[in-house]
Amino acid sequence: MEDKLADLKTRLAEVDDLENAAALLEWDQLTQMPPSGAPARAEQTATLHRIAHEKFTAEAVGHLLDDLGRQYQDASANDDDAALVRVAARRFRRKQQIPAALVAEMSEVTSLAQEAWAKARATNDFALFLPHLERVYALKRQMAACFPDVEAPYDALLDDYEPGMRTSQVQAMFAELRQGVAPLLQAIAAQPKVDESVLRRDYDERQQWDVSVAAIRQFGFDFKAGRQDKSVHPFCTSFSPGDVRLTTRIDRQWLPTCLMGSLHECGHGLYEQGLPARHRRTPLGHYASLGIHESQSRLWENLVGRGRGFWNFFYPQLQAAFPTQLAEVPLDTFYRAINRVQPSYIRVEADEVTYNLHTMLRFELEVALLEEALAAKDAPDAWNAKFKEYFGLDVPEDRLGILQDIHWSAGLVGYFPTYTLGNLASVQFYEKAVADVPSIPDGFERGEFGPLLGWLRENVHCHGARYLPAELVEKVTGAPLTAGPYLRYIKAKYSEVYGL
Amino acid sequence: MEDKLADLKTRLAEVDDLENAAALLEWDQLTQMPPSGAPARAEQTATLHRIAHEKFTAEAVGHLLDDLGRQYQDASANDDDAALVRVAARRFRRKQQIPAALVAEMSEVTSLAQEAWAKARATNDFALFLPHLERVYALKRQMAACFPDVEAPYDALLDDYEPGMRTSQVQAMFAELRQGVAPLLQAIAAQPKVDESVLRRDYDERQQWDVSVAAIRQFGFDFKAGRQDKSVHPFCTSFSPGDVRLTTRIDRQWLPTCLMGSLHECGHGLYEQGLPARHRRTPLGHYASLGIHESQSRLWENLVGRGRGFWNFFYPQLQAAFPTQLAEVPLDTFYRAINRVQPSYIRVEADEVTYNLHTMLRFELEVALLEEALAAKDAPDAWNAKFKEYFGLDVPEDRLGILQDIHWSAGLVGYFPTYTLGNLASVQFYEKAVADVPSIPDGFERGEFGPLLGWLRENVHCHGARYLPAELVEKVTGAPLTAGPYLRYIKAKYSEVYGL
Repeated sequence: MEDKLADLKTRLAEVDDLENAAALLEWDQLTQMPPSGAPARAEQTATLHRIAHEKFTAEAVGHLLDDLGRQYQDASANDDDAALVRVAARRFRRKQQIPAALVAEMSEVTSLAQEAWAKARATNDFALFLPHLERVYALKRQMAACFPDVEAPYDALLDDYEPGMRTSQVQAMFAELRQGVAPLLQAIAAQPKVDESVLRRDYDERQQWDVSVAAIRQFGFDFKAGRQDKSVHPFCTSFSPGDVRLTTRIDRQWLPTCLMGSLHECGHGLYEQGLPARHRRTPLGHYASLGIHESQSRLWENLVGRGRGFWNFFYPQLQAAFPTQLAEVPLDTFYRAINRVQPSYIRVEADEVTYNLHTMLRFELEVALLEEALAAKDAPDAWNAKFKEYFGLDVPEDRLGILQDIHWSAGLVGYFPTYTLGNLASVQFYEKAVADVPSIPDGFERGEFGPLLGWLRENVHCHGARYLPAELVEKVTGAPLTAGPYLRYIKAKYSEVYGL
Repeated sequence: MEDKLADLKTRLAEVDDLENAAALLEWDQLTQMPPSGAPARAEQTATLHRIAHEKFTAEAVGHLLDDLGRQYQDASANDDDAALVRVAARRFRRKQQIPAALVAEMSEVTSLAQEAWAKARATNDFALFLPHLERVYALKRQMAACFPDVEAPYDALLDDYEPGMRTSQVQAMFAELRQGVAPLLQAIAAQPKVDESVLRRDYDERQQWDVSVAAIRQFGFDFKAGRQDKSVHPFCTSFSPGDVRLTTRIDRQWLPTCLMGSLHECGHGLYEQGLPARHRRTPLGHYASLGIHESQSRLWENLVGRGRGFWNFFYPQLQAAFPTQLAEVPLDTFYRAINRVQPSYIRVEADEVTYNLHTMLRFELEVALLEEALAAKDAPDAWNAKFKEYFGLDVPEDRLGILQDIHWSAGLVGYFPTYTLGNLASVQFYEKAVADVPSIPDGFERGEFGPLLGWLRENVHCHGARYLPAELVEKVTGAPLTAGPYLRYIKAKYSEVYGL
């Protein structure tokens, strides 16, 4: 049995190496690669992913997992090897259940769909994208059908990003959330608009970069085990806990792009740097889910990075970096500006109050499209009607509506809810951290972020992928994930910001 | 047969993708990676190399090559597919002939040997390195013994870097070269020393970088298909002709490090950018040998980059970049400084006249060590005696002697001669280029490097690895590789520089 376990670990390590190498190729493509490198890079990345997939889904791996699964079925939940076999077997079954031909077809269809989507968005022409959207959903239905045991077809897709999470659970959380957000948003809308012009001054790019690096260094991002680069769209990737790469972008006329974006990606990066190094090269050493990942980025971006404590500490540094822009601007003016609530068309620019309405809208359309309760051709109208209902705004054109996000063209159906699950979990984790270590918020005033990071390391990061995300939230906070903490948080915070 | 060819190409493409991915991991490690990324990176790179090796040496590949080899045995030499099968089969046989266990042992032994060498060099203590040197050569003897058909054991090692080249051929060329260099060096030594102090002024690093980028851009390096970064030791690597990476380093007090180093690596890079894109992902699409590669770097660094024509054109740009250092320095003073001939201990700092004496010394010791005509423990004395003979200098300590180069600790035995073969070929190619296009040298005066690059593209680069290096030199220049052209070149040039 020892031999089988060693054999399994060797095979998983090889797969992990291949996937991490592919991740480096992708990072390089988005940050370093000269343009003429693209065709060869696409082939190289595809080859690594294909070999990793072949090696992970090999019959021999299945036999090892079966044999070891029987061996460990009575093992303690704390047994590392039993956990490894359990987590690997879950992933193996998911991947095995989808025929290779379907995976290959999805890859081809989404490759074309992304091209079509980019054109459709640029020309504001949904008709260009429609046939691709139909094909993507047709394939997604086939994929969902590979998992006949699920409660709802959407469960089968959601599981790729949020293992174990069910559509009905998401619906329940989202319903509670919307009920709480709607009156808050109405109350805010009745108040005078917050002036955010201070964020729109001319901010030198080099200074923006230096300030963002200084901020994430103070949060605790370890630059010996990571770096930050520029890319068109910010992201975080990692090839081991010792090598975590963040990217950011800079807008001279909009300060939050770089600074708040860096704090967000830093949250992702702190999670990756905190994953259990002893489980490196195994599925246990990875993040628990996209929702849990997003909980970490949102926690550092919003709970810390848009909080009064952080700004009491950090605003003098920002003023020193931009004296002509900020020396005369009172902290409160700045604080209100970066916490302005304003219904808007674009999800990625949304504030803490309206953000989740964007993901709910997409989630509801995804379920309807998958279940054929909505035809793809009717999706723009459905989008716009829901947008009017949730935001009170008419969508003037599809590129500000249904064409804004790349996800569906890339085959990422079931992904959007994880943004909101992350928001909810961020507050639930944070509340527990403060309950355990009450001095955490006061520390921010003095630039002490170590106690929070330490708590996250010990309570969240160290578990890697050992627990399903729902199990992890319950284990850490003592309660299942709900919208309650998030609603309490935004109500309290924005009542204060808007004087409600 | 079409199916077999397609199968072979698919397999070779996969191997190529893996090797190029590994090359990117290595580039990243040396230019971008944060230090804590090292342990995981070593595993990831090793995994990619191992899978590439397994896939290339698979039995099925051997059968395909056998079957296709028979099919193509009467094909024209110009037939691409026949050439592909021939080149792939040659590589396959080389790799197959060395047992995997021996490769693995060499990898372990050299990993330790490199550590020991670094310590030995730092502390100037050859005894630390001695047992490792003995082990490396013992394994190299075993590797050579895997090829019983060779004329001399060293042939078997040389073939890794310079396919088809024989030790006796190298010895003949080197003997001719030494006979020609010795009197030239004596004549130069009798002249007053050239003052090179102008190269030792304080040169701003950013300006050095910009000047070097400007120079290689003017040579024709395509920054849409490549980039330059900094690293501790300069190198060139490539993941496709569309993605070629150069590195350089900067010494504030020694101008040639960055500028001449960049011209050298640019020569490598121009070769890689000129390799036949239609043979990408096959062995045909690669460089012919290390010697041919070095011929390109030396051609651009020395024949062009240390020539009067180039400096007549480029010196005003350099003066403009460094007015306080160079405005008052006449071109001729600068030209003589960068062409100073001076026997010195360190190979990588050697001039065009003495450089090849360094490689000859190493080559002679390598052959003696391999054939057990020299014991490793006696190697420092043998080194120092030869050094006295060739350079007239006493080696004051081993780190300026036998411990200076990493090659032996890395298992690179048979590699040194390729530096000199490259020097010889660089002149032989250049003479033919000028014979074909007599306006080439005059063009340099006006910054016109395109005619030379075009000639190299059409006559050298486009062939990739289709021909063995000796075949390629003969095909391009109409004569076998000899020391004659190189000797003519250095005699003419340095007679002029030193007024002999």
